[in-house]
Amino acid sequence: MFDQVMAQRAAENLKNVREKRPLVHNITNLVVMNFTANALLACGASPVMAHAPEEVEEMVSFAGALVLNIGTLTPYWITSMLKAGKRANQLNVPIILDPVGSGATTLRTQSAKSLLNELDVSVVRGNASEVLSLAGDDSRTKGVDSIHSVEEAADAAGQLAKELGTTLAITGAVDLVTDGSRVCRISNGHELMGYVTGTGCAATALIGAFLAVQANSLEAATTALAYFGLAGEKAAEQANAPGGFQLGLLDALFRIDGETLRKGAKIQCQRSQ
Amino acid sequence: MFDQVMAQRAAENLKNVREKRPLVHNITNLVVMNFTANALLACGASPVMAHAPEEVEEMVSFAGALVLNIGTLTPYWITSMLKAGKRANQLNVPIILDPVGSGATTLRTQSAKSLLNELDVSVVRGNASEVLSLAGDDSRTKGVDSIHSVEEAADAAGQLAKELGTTLAITGAVDLVTDGSRVCRISNGHELMGYVTGTGCAATALIGAFLAVQANSLEAATTALAYFGLAGEKAAEQANAPGGFQLGLLDALFRIDGETLRKGAKIQCQRSQ
Amino acid sequence: MFDQVMAQRAAENLKNVREKRPLVHNITNLVVMNFTANALLACGASPVMAHAPEEVEEMVSFAGALVLNIGTLTPYWITSMLKAGKRANQLNVPIILDPVGSGATTLRTQSAKSLLNELDVSVVRGNASEVLSLAGDDSRTKGVDSIHSVEEAADAAGQLAKELGTTLAITGAVDLVTDGSRVCRISNGHELMGYVTGTGCAATALIGAFLAVQANSLEAATTALAYFGLAGEKAAEQANAPGGFQLGLLDALFRIDGETLRKGAKIQCQRSQ
Repeated sequence: MFDQVMAQRAAENLKNVREKRPLVHNITNLVVMNFTANALLACGASPVMAHAPEEVEEMVSFAGALVLNIGTLTPYWITSMLKAGKRANQLNVPIILDPVGSGATTLRTQSAKSLLNELDVSVVRGNASEVLSLAGDDSRTKGVDSIHSVEEAADAAGQLAKELGTTLAITGAVDLVTDGSRVCRISNGHELMGYVTGTGCAATALIGAFLAVQANSLEAATTALAYFGLAGEKAAEQANAPGGFQLGLLDALFRIDGETLRKGAKIQCQRSQ
Repeated sequence: MFDQVMAQRAAENLKNVREKRPLVHNITNLVVMNFTANALLACGASPVMAHAPEEVEEMVSFAGALVLNIGTLTPYWITSMLKAGKRANQLNVPIILDPVGSGATTLRTQSAKSLLNELDVSVVRGNASEVLSLAGDDSRTKGVDSIHSVEEAADAAGQLAKELGTTLAITGAVDLVTDGSRVCRISNGHELMGYVTGTGCAATALIGAFLAVQANSLEAATTALAYFGLAGEKAAEQANAPGGFQLGLLDALFRIDGETLRKGAKIQCQRSQ
Repeated sequence: MFDQVMAQRAAENLKNVREKRPLVHNITNLVVMNFTANALLACGASPVMAHAPEEVEEMVSFAGALVLNIGTLTPYWITSMLKAGKRANQLNVPIILDPVGSGATTLRTQSAKSLLNELDVSVVRGNASEVLSLAGDDSRTKGVDSIHSVEEAADAAGQLAKELGTTLAITGAVDLVTDGSRVCRISNGHELMGYVTGTGCAATALIGAFLAVQANSLEAATTALAYFGLAGEKAAEQANAPGGFQLGLLDALFRIDGETLRKGAKIQCQRSQ
C-alpha cells in the first residue's frame, strides 16, 4: 500500500545525513532556534544559526543547505535572508523556505513572496493557509495557525508549484508534497505535534538536512517529513502530553535508524493529474 | 476556606480558552519565547510572536490579548510595544505587561513606566520589586530576581493599582492580585518554579490567554495564576529537579481540566481596606 | 590519580555559588539563552540576559561575572559587549568569552579578537578550532563544530594563553584549561553532550558563575568544567538520547552537591613545560 521505493530512499537519505553530517545554515525565528538546532543535531546534521548581513554569505558557503524562516521577521532579517540566499544560489546550495504566518500580515506575505521572487528556492514548507497565501489567495491565516486543511490546498498546490518552479510541502494531519509533476502524501505524524511550538519549523530544517544529501527536492521533502512524522509517532508511544512529547521527539529523531524508517514510512506518491 | 466562586470561575475561564482558542500576541523577551509559546499551546491558546514595527498593528488586530514583556528590551522593541499597544487599545484588545527587571536599570524602569503611561494596561504581572519600582520606589531589584516579599508590597499595591488604573498581579510564594478594590491571594505553586527560567513570563502569558475570554482583569489574573500554580504542584509530584519539572509544567498545563482546577484552586479574596 | 586539591576546590566553589547566588550577566546568543539561564539557575546562580547598549553598563555593575558569547553576533551586539566589558573591567567584574564559530567567518574571528584586544578577559572557553583561530591560525572551523582535537591545540594553547594574558578552556572529549603556567585536564563528560545545542555555551556560563566566587581563573574554569562534565555523566545514567539527556543535565546540575562533585571530579593538573 505504501511506496516502498520512497521508503527505501528515506532510509538512505537519513543514513547519508548521518555519514556526511552536513552543515545546515539557519536564518530562522527567535522562538524555535533552540528546538531547531536540537532537532538537526538529533538527526545527525550540524546546525549553525547566523543572521548578520556581514557574515551570512561566508557562512552559507560552507553549508549543505540554507533554511529561511520568517517566523519573527524584521526587514533587517529579510535583508540577510536575501543576501544569504543569493550566495546560496550562486553556489548551488539548496534553499528551503518556511513562510511562517504568510497571509496573516502584509509584511509576512510580501516578504515570503519577495524571497520566492528573488531566490531560486528548492522547497517551501508551510501549512495550507501559508502556502495558499503565496498564490495571491486572499485567505487569511489566524496568526501562525492554518485555517485551511491540506486537502483544500491540494488542487491549487500542483499549479502553484509549477508557477513558482519549486516543490511545495504542505503539512497537516496528512502531509502533501508536490513539484507539479508528482504528488506524495505522508501519513506519519501525531496530533500532539500541534501542541509543541516549532514542530513545523523543525520539519523545515530537517528537509534542509535531507536536501543537503538528496538533490531531488520532492524526494528530500517527502522522506524528511516521513522521518519527522515517524518520530512523532514514536514520541507519542512514550508521552501523552506536550512536555514529555517535545523531548520524546528529539529522542526519536536520534534513535530512528534507516531500517526503522524504511519500515515505518507511510508514503504514497502518484503522478499529478 | 478557599473561594469557591473564584475556583468555579477558574474552571470556566480555562474551558473557554480551550473552546475559543484565542490568539495571544506576544512581544516578549528572547529567553522565554519558546517556553511561553509552549505554555500557551498547552493551555489551549494560540500563541504568536511578532515584533516588527511594520506588522504589530496588523497582527494584534486578530488577537484576543497582547502580552508585553521587557525582559530583553531595546528601544526598538519598546517602539514596537507602544505601536502594538496603541492599536490594541483602539480595538479593545486587553494588554498585559510584564516589567521584567524594572527597578534594576534605568532603561527598564523608564520603559515600564512609559508603557504604563502611554497605554491602557489591564494587568501588570511582576515580582514584588518590579511592581514596587513602578511606584517610583527607590528599591532596586537584583537583576530579575525580587528583593522584596509579596506581602511587603501588599500595602502599596492597592494604592498603586488605583493610581495606575490597572490590576496588579504580584507573584511569589503566595501570589497577590489587586485592582485596588479587591485583593486576592493565590496559594498554589511550588518552589521549583524559581529554578526554571520564564515561569513568571509564562504566568503573564497565561493571564493574557485568560484575559482573552474574561473581561474582569482581577478575575482573569487570579484564576490564571491559580491554574499555573496548580500546574506547578502537579509537576512537582512527578519531578524533583528543574529539568523534569520544566516539562512537567507543560504536561500539567495540558492535562489539568476544569474540574481539577476547580478543586485545586487555592484562592482567597477580600475587599481592600 | 586525580587531583584531590582541585576536587576539593570544585566542591567549595559550587557551595559558594549556592550560598552567594551571584548575578551572572549574559550577553549571549539567541539559540542558547533559555538553556543557559536554566543551567545557571540549576547551579544556584542568578542569571540575567541584557544586551541593550543603554543598560548593559548599569546591569553589569550588579554582576558577579559577565559572559560574552558571539554565537549569533551582529555589530550591534558586539558594541554592547564592548560597552559592558569595559565597565566590567573598571569594576573588576570578571569576563568570560565564548568565541562561538570564531574561525568560521571573518566577522566572528575579528569580533572575537577585538573583544580580546579591547577587554581584559579572565577566561576564553571554546572548542579547539575556535581557540586556535584566536592565534591567527588559518584553520577554519566548520560552522560551530571543531575540526581539531583538544590535544592538537594543547601545545599552542599554553603559548597563546601567555600572549593573550588569559586562561584558555578548550573543551572536547577531554577538556584542557591552561593559564600558560599550569595546565589542567578534565576527563568528566559524556558524548551525548555533543548532541544537545548550547552545552558548550552553558559550560561557559557556569565558568562565569564559578568566577564570581573564585578569583583564580584557572581554578574557576577547571572546577566548573568538572562540575558540568559530571552532570553529563549523571544525565547519561538516566537517558540515552538527546531529549531526555538535555533535561537530565539540568536535573544533575541541580542535584550534584559538593561532596558528589569532590568524589566525581576527574581533574589532573601539572606545570606547563
